[in-house]
Amino acid sequence: MPGHILIVGERINATRKRIGEAIEKRDAAHIEKEALAQAEAGADYIDVNAGRAGANEAEDLCWLVEVVQGATDRPLCLDSADPRALAAAVEKVKRPPLVNSINGDPARIEGVLPLVVEHGASVVALTMEEGSMPESAADRMRIAKVLAEAAGKSGLAMSKVHFDPCVLAASTSPGQPVAVLETTREIKRAWPESHVICGLSNVSFGMPLRGLLNRTYVAMMAACGADGFILDPTDASMRATVAAAQVLSGADEFGMEYIGAAREGRIA
Amino acid sequence: MPGHILIVGERINATRKRIGEAIEKRDAAHIEKEALAQAEAGADYIDVNAGRAGANEAEDLCWLVEVVQGATDRPLCLDSADPRALAAAVEKVKRPPLVNSINGDPARIEGVLPLVVEHGASVVALTMEEGSMPESAADRMRIAKVLAEAAGKSGLAMSKVHFDPCVLAASTSPGQPVAVLETTREIKRAWPESHVICGLSNVSFGMPLRGLLNRTYVAMMAACGADGFILDPTDASMRATVAAAQVLSGADEFGMEYIGAAREGRIA
Repeated sequence: MPGHILIVGERINATRKRIGEAIEKRDAAHIEKEALAQAEAGADYIDVNAGRAGANEAEDLCWLVEVVQGATDRPLCLDSADPRALAAAVEKVKRPPLVNSINGDPARIEGVLPLVVEHGASVVALTMEEGSMPESAADRMRIAKVLAEAAGKSGLAMSKVHFDPCVLAASTSPGQPVAVLETTREIKRAWPESHVICGLSNVSFGMPLRGLLNRTYVAMMAACGADGFILDPTDASMRATVAAAQVLSGADEFGMEYIGAAREGRIA
Repeated sequence: MPGHILIVGERINATRKRIGEAIEKRDAAHIEKEALAQAEAGADYIDVNAGRAGANEAEDLCWLVEVVQGATDRPLCLDSADPRALAAAVEKVKRPPLVNSINGDPARIEGVLPLVVEHGASVVALTMEEGSMPESAADRMRIAKVLAEAAGKSGLAMSKVHFDPCVLAASTSPGQPVAVLETTREIKRAWPESHVICGLSNVSFGMPLRGLLNRTYVAMMAACGADGFILDPTDASMRATVAAAQVLSGADEFGMEYIGAAREGRIA
């Protein structure tokens, strides 16, 4: 079972309209406010994603890194599909970051993994290939093996690999959430030192009461050994579910953290 | 992964003060109201428990059976530690009941299992022995094997056995909720046709925000293969979590039930 559940705060993402505008206008105050709110809500890493059509992503990402580091001491999750943006941003970070991400594509592995090793970083390893989503747990495990071998060859310890089993929408692919639970168990069996991290927004796509589905899936993933989530830590209900899952997975012994959080009204 | 999640409505239990009084005073109207409310909230079985100190449990349980059957068509879960009370009550039921329970104690197995087989019932099989709670998943599996063998000898199909892995309080036994998750996975691996059912109130004993812990544990247990819960179906938040878990475990394909329930305001 997982130890401490790692929370990556997902709010600073250029695909959100308000964040895209803040990046374009270099509105540091707004970014700082988002960074601080997530740090105070308990994020272990602050994700920074500057991907906007037609923009200079490397430059934008470096700006985000500097602004967020000015606001909080939390380490960053450098989130980009562009190896050049990651290479530029990783030079700016003060604390070892989580680099998001590599996948089964050899060019992506070759472009990003050396940066990760050189900077003492950890990496999010997506169990997918460029341009196609995995269909089964077996598909995902085949790609996970490629990623684990690449980590081994590059000298990256498995404890620095956070597999992301790529959850898809239950509304369009009813069997996918279960396949991801199975993959999670298999990854933890194959590489017990590695981690499983999971983005949540996809799972509830197209459904009503999305927060309820996202929270329920956090608990289900934690039961299968996932120990990290990319989510909005300012969502109090989500934070409460994570706190409860830590008690029930044995990570929060005797519920000491949980009881304190309940007493101080941080969860409800 | 589980199919439909079975809900046993737990509210008609003599250990609840108001129910104990209703049994004592033969207040049928109150019992009927509780039965109907649970049936309308989606209970698959209505639990009836008449265990009160110094009372005639067999007589009280038979009265409960008749009152509840007058109010709803749902089948009953006959809940007693006294084989004589179960023997009397099982004669009164109109539909095959769930008999709650047997455990690893030979006298309990011999006293109850023949009734189960004779009446075409299903049975809750607790992975504990009389007077002592199990400590590990291995302990629970040792008792589960005894119970599965007894079912086999008596001619009871494993599809009619609902193992209850006996969850204990996280507040006093931090490793117990995880041991129960492990046991659930092992039971489903050993006897895929069998079921795992779980009472919830113990897990959160002594902790704040008990409903949050109970709901989170439902999701975690469902992820490990549990397909039944003994709970209060009139709790709307709990019902919502069960509905979400059915979507995410693939039992509610394309979320058809979930979307309908959300639209009609039955979950929120």
